[in-house]
Amino acid sequence: MTAPDPIPPTIAWVDGCVRMIDQRRLPGELAFVDAKTVDELCDAIRTLAVRGAPALGVAGAMGMALAQVTGADPDGAAAQILGTRPTAVNLAWGVGRGRAAADAVAEAERLAADDVARNRRLGAHGAPLVPEGGRVLTHCNAGALACAGYGTALGVIRAAAEQGRRPSVWVDETRPVLQGARLTAWELDRLGIPATLVADVMAGSLMSGGEVDCVVVGADRIARNGDVANKVGTYSLAVLARHHGIPFYVAAPLATVDLDCPTGADIPIERRAADEVASIEGHAIAPPGFTVENRAFDVTPAELVTAIVTEAGVLEPPYTESIGSATAG
Amino acid sequence: MTAPDPIPPTIAWVDGCVRMIDQRRLPGELAFVDAKTVDELCDAIRTLAVRGAPALGVAGAMGMALAQVTGADPDGAAAQILGTRPTAVNLAWGVGRGRAAADAVAEAERLAADDVARNRRLGAHGAPLVPEGGRVLTHCNAGALACAGYGTALGVIRAAAEQGRRPSVWVDETRPVLQGARLTAWELDRLGIPATLVADVMAGSLMSGGEVDCVVVGADRIARNGDVANKVGTYSLAVLARHHGIPFYVAAPLATVDLDCPTGADIPIERRAADEVASIEGHAIAPPGFTVENRAFDVTPAELVTAIVTEAGVLEPPYTESIGSATAG
Repeated sequence: MTAPDPIPPTIAWVDGCVRMIDQRRLPGELAFVDAKTVDELCDAIRTLAVRGAPALGVAGAMGMALAQVTGADPDGAAAQILGTRPTAVNLAWGVGRGRAAADAVAEAERLAADDVARNRRLGAHGAPLVPEGGRVLTHCNAGALACAGYGTALGVIRAAAEQGRRPSVWVDETRPVLQGARLTAWELDRLGIPATLVADVMAGSLMSGGEVDCVVVGADRIARNGDVANKVGTYSLAVLARHHGIPFYVAAPLATVDLDCPTGADIPIERRAADEVASIEGHAIAPPGFTVENRAFDVTPAELVTAIVTEAGVLEPPYTESIGSATAG
Repeated sequence: MTAPDPIPPTIAWVDGCVRMIDQRRLPGELAFVDAKTVDELCDAIRTLAVRGAPALGVAGAMGMALAQVTGADPDGAAAQILGTRPTAVNLAWGVGRGRAAADAVAEAERLAADDVARNRRLGAHGAPLVPEGGRVLTHCNAGALACAGYGTALGVIRAAAEQGRRPSVWVDETRPVLQGARLTAWELDRLGIPATLVADVMAGSLMSGGEVDCVVVGADRIARNGDVANKVGTYSLAVLARHHGIPFYVAAPLATVDLDCPTGADIPIERRAADEVASIEGHAIAPPGFTVENRAFDVTPAELVTAIVTEAGVLEPPYTESIGSATAG
């Protein structure tokens, strides 16, 4: 018998509404937020109550289910949901799937269940990449909270732990929204996987000290050539990993690949509000009105990516070919 | 006639005590803290009311002046001051200078005045390295607030502005203590130099986008071979700058060179409290009791440093020779 998952579902259809772990309130409190309308769901997406590319895929489908159940105009609902966040391609994928279904609720629930099963396959494929006792550095949160459950990058680490490989994790805090400190640390704590929190700026010191065996991150969108858009800061880690000869792995479901994007230059990068950087918990950390540039994502070129771990297996360069074969199936 | 400096002295001897800008309260409030005893000064150093290698040099001398004025045991006072922070070599230098002086107050005041004059010379030497309209990225605070006045890395930028080169600045926020967001942004705002605040993780995106013309940082200690200890995150910037072919400059007075350190491996790296990372303004951002690694500094190897800007001129590789000549003088 399997022990119950220590992390409840990130997003689920419950009693006619979309119930989500309210990620704005972690790690202080495990609370839930319910969206009963498309408006409420869009607000939850925009304010990062729910975030993470695979979770946004499910959220997109559940949004179309809400539209169907509440009798909202499907064109308007789809446009509204797609307008919330531009970078994760999964959102559009989920909206499309929910929209095309006769029973959008059933389809959304199926996507959520599929996501967990897919992440378990992805994790099993990726686990052997983590050396015995390996010290894995990760950025942002590509865990259960970024998906319907189990996780992608954290799924690889979790599967490695389940296979007895005894990984430990360096958790980048991930400014400005602190998804590493708030969410990844919370998940690893619940899972009992040894982990240490560091400020993002410490990655170089860890790598030059020989304290990192591999980097594993998620992805918000992958271009056809293997260029990867992910949380801002990912690219710096990839450059550092290359400089130190450390493998750099991306873990993401194939739905993250956007065949309409030939390269990373075609991926739109979301800019978010200045306030996300200039204040923390309502407290100003910069002079009033100071100019801020706040890009939520950056693009890591394919040549810095050692491998891409998917539910279909571990894809290796050249990615145009390996991605092409995997997505043709 | 010169306009008054928009930034008051960081540290000065006033009415028998050491008056410092209280950097813990910036950018919200320009307030001062007075130390009347060695204990009070050590507390100000430890809690970062005063920080920055050149300012710590002056603080060391002023601490010995306090010891002399209050009749404290000089051995005990010196040991106490040196125990506050291990990485900046300037602290030991200042303590030594104050201790050797018959009139420690006069010596400390002279060091403070010398520091400002030295930084102006350093700035004038470094300014031509900033291209016309150059976009300069800096990390932490190596400005007037890190010195008795004027600044080292920011002194270079300030001198470039004074010479009509119209620089603009990317300000790294500099987690965990946010010296960039809180102090560098405040200084540039006061100086009227155009600047934009970014999370540390955005440096890679800026460099890959061709938006950075050079990096200028300060130093807490420089080894004889040119290896540089500076605020954690500096090393990552140096690796990124090299990857993108962007010049990486270190600006520091010659007193920052520690001839007793053959290489960076000999420089002690201060570890600070977990709480500095795990909470912000008293608000927990990680699960309670989560393990944290918090190194205050990292070491950038000499081969990644394009040049070291000092009051004696711009030193170029090989640093063993150029530093040797400059410090022999």
